[in-house]
Amino acid sequence: MSTPYSALETPALLVDLDRMERNLDRAARYVSAHGLSLRPHVKTHKTPWIAAAQMERGARGLTCATPREAEVMSEVADDLLVAYPTVGAARARRVAELPAGVRVTVGLDGPVAIDCLAAAAARADRPVRVLVELDLGMRRVGVATVDDAIALAQQVRRSAPLEFAGIMFYPGHVREPMAQQDEQLTAIGRSVRAAVDAFDRAGLHPEVVSGGSTPTLWRSHEIDGVTEIRPGTYVFNDRTTAAIGACSWDDCALTVLATVVSTAVPGQAVIDAGTKSLGREPLRGAEGTGFGALLDRPEVTVKQMSEEHGILDLSQTDWMPTVGSLVRVVPNHVCISVHLADTMHGMRSELVERSWTIAARSREPQPVAGGVAP
Amino acid sequence: MSTPYSALETPALLVDLDRMERNLDRAARYVSAHGLSLRPHVKTHKTPWIAAAQMERGARGLTCATPREAEVMSEVADDLLVAYPTVGAARARRVAELPAGVRVTVGLDGPVAIDCLAAAAARADRPVRVLVELDLGMRRVGVATVDDAIALAQQVRRSAPLEFAGIMFYPGHVREPMAQQDEQLTAIGRSVRAAVDAFDRAGLHPEVVSGGSTPTLWRSHEIDGVTEIRPGTYVFNDRTTAAIGACSWDDCALTVLATVVSTAVPGQAVIDAGTKSLGREPLRGAEGTGFGALLDRPEVTVKQMSEEHGILDLSQTDWMPTVGSLVRVVPNHVCISVHLADTMHGMRSELVERSWTIAARSREPQPVAGGVAP
Repeated sequence: MSTPYSALETPALLVDLDRMERNLDRAARYVSAHGLSLRPHVKTHKTPWIAAAQMERGARGLTCATPREAEVMSEVADDLLVAYPTVGAARARRVAELPAGVRVTVGLDGPVAIDCLAAAAARADRPVRVLVELDLGMRRVGVATVDDAIALAQQVRRSAPLEFAGIMFYPGHVREPMAQQDEQLTAIGRSVRAAVDAFDRAGLHPEVVSGGSTPTLWRSHEIDGVTEIRPGTYVFNDRTTAAIGACSWDDCALTVLATVVSTAVPGQAVIDAGTKSLGREPLRGAEGTGFGALLDRPEVTVKQMSEEHGILDLSQTDWMPTVGSLVRVVPNHVCISVHLADTMHGMRSELVERSWTIAARSREPQPVAGGVAP
Repeated sequence: MSTPYSALETPALLVDLDRMERNLDRAARYVSAHGLSLRPHVKTHKTPWIAAAQMERGARGLTCATPREAEVMSEVADDLLVAYPTVGAARARRVAELPAGVRVTVGLDGPVAIDCLAAAAARADRPVRVLVELDLGMRRVGVATVDDAIALAQQVRRSAPLEFAGIMFYPGHVREPMAQQDEQLTAIGRSVRAAVDAFDRAGLHPEVVSGGSTPTLWRSHEIDGVTEIRPGTYVFNDRTTAAIGACSWDDCALTVLATVVSTAVPGQAVIDAGTKSLGREPLRGAEGTGFGALLDRPEVTVKQMSEEHGILDLSQTDWMPTVGSLVRVVPNHVCISVHLADTMHGMRSELVERSWTIAARSREPQPVAGGVAP
């Protein structure tokens, strides 16, 4: 296993394991210091081995979006939150049929999702816990009023084997640089407090109040009432996370290793990582253009892309890459770059220490050990 | 096999087989009428079964970008063009080790790619044909001057077992609506003619002059000197292709089947197809916003996305979708949506006729039958 990473075929996903472990350790220390539970979202890495590393560092459980993610992660965690409305018979069934030893919780925001999940849970004869999702400004999913949320919690109570477990929200609209989040976090904190009080008055104490993202990670303790947080990106970080100050550039643990394949057009260099490797995600919450930047030369960005071509902007550098050179691109949004690949390579001191399949990337059903039979 | 498509788990890629076959037939008739060779780019479908359908309709061979695409397609075609610079030892080796019965051609634009390929071809003891790529305005890859191209062709001649076969270009910068392409096509035609004449004068007659994209597909015959075209998207078409008039809306053969999972936030509906299913590709060459539009209601677009959420813009419709409803989204750029999935489902008269793995999507090496041993 002493292959240097420079021998990998490109494009390839390369994880700096020292940096990744430092990122995981830092988050573990933070939640421990503030008495919060950490339930990392696995959408970022989709890798059981990394999820296990999060669990070993004290994560309360894992957050998943897709049935496949939950199926794969049931091998390394016995407490899973599916933070996605269980609408559709197949989605509800796959969640209800996760291995019996796994405590399953679902986050949802409407009566149809509750009905689908209740039917599947009854058929599988297993309890499923439910968090009712509130919209606290993201305007994606989640009910708009606490009264609507309480009505859903009451529906859950009437829908055995479902069990009401609490409330959740996703502060994904907070994309400001960390130092500029005061106003948004204050508003969220006020809403959370009001919701918890109203649920308590209704005799529906929310045991869990789940929130938290990577951009707001290090200020999660300022939101009074939150019991657990669900960051995903923090495991690797990315160009956006660094740009808003939620990590330093040296905390970026994942890069897309690419080869310069052409310098034929004057004034630019073309790498073999394009939209089918990097994704076409903008930099968010901060100034900046391009779809990624070089780890060692962040002034060099990927300014344009085709499916298998990325064009480096060399206007801010004296560096003149030659055909065959390797570069490491920090993507704007790491979750997308991972989803576009099949394999990741973990590297330490320039050597590939391990390579693994991104097991939860696909959407196909993963047969689960000990799963409840259909 | 009489499952209705509405029983598929979402998000899912759905191919209307009647429309796809109509698209393939139309292109076959077009090239036949104009004496052109058709070498479809498989990046769009990455599916051997569809590639075979293209070959059955008279395609001269196939175009690939990645070694994996070439390995997979070697099972259904004996004439492959790898239209990508073979820089890097692994890329050149995989191309040179394609099955011996396959005629392999590579498109490239620089001396390093020639050296890499020549070394790999010599090691594998097989001839590989080479097209020298010219930049005719795309400014991505390709040499800028005919003199540079001739110098590369001469290097190829000196690099047995490589064989000089001709020239290629990619008119990917022509994104105008079909009716507005006159000026660009005239300029390209002039450049092609000048290049062919110069190569002839240098005693390097280009047997192949390869060009052509989907946006320019139906005007390819206007570029004098072109012998073959390499469209990819035309097999399915997409929102962009329809927007520029290179197909009608009814020619869009691939949709992303999705479920409405939430209407909790007033005035919108959320579907389970986001950036991890649709990609974040803009509409190009025509007016329009959003990342896709509903097949049956093109006035409804996907206005915002998260990884697993797409938000429908309902401002231009009276339609009020309910949670659990199925929708079919025509993506802006179909090649990306295909690359994001593992499976496609072919449908006729609402019934799923066949489902297949998108075999050339991954980048992992595909063991090839009869391949030259490493």
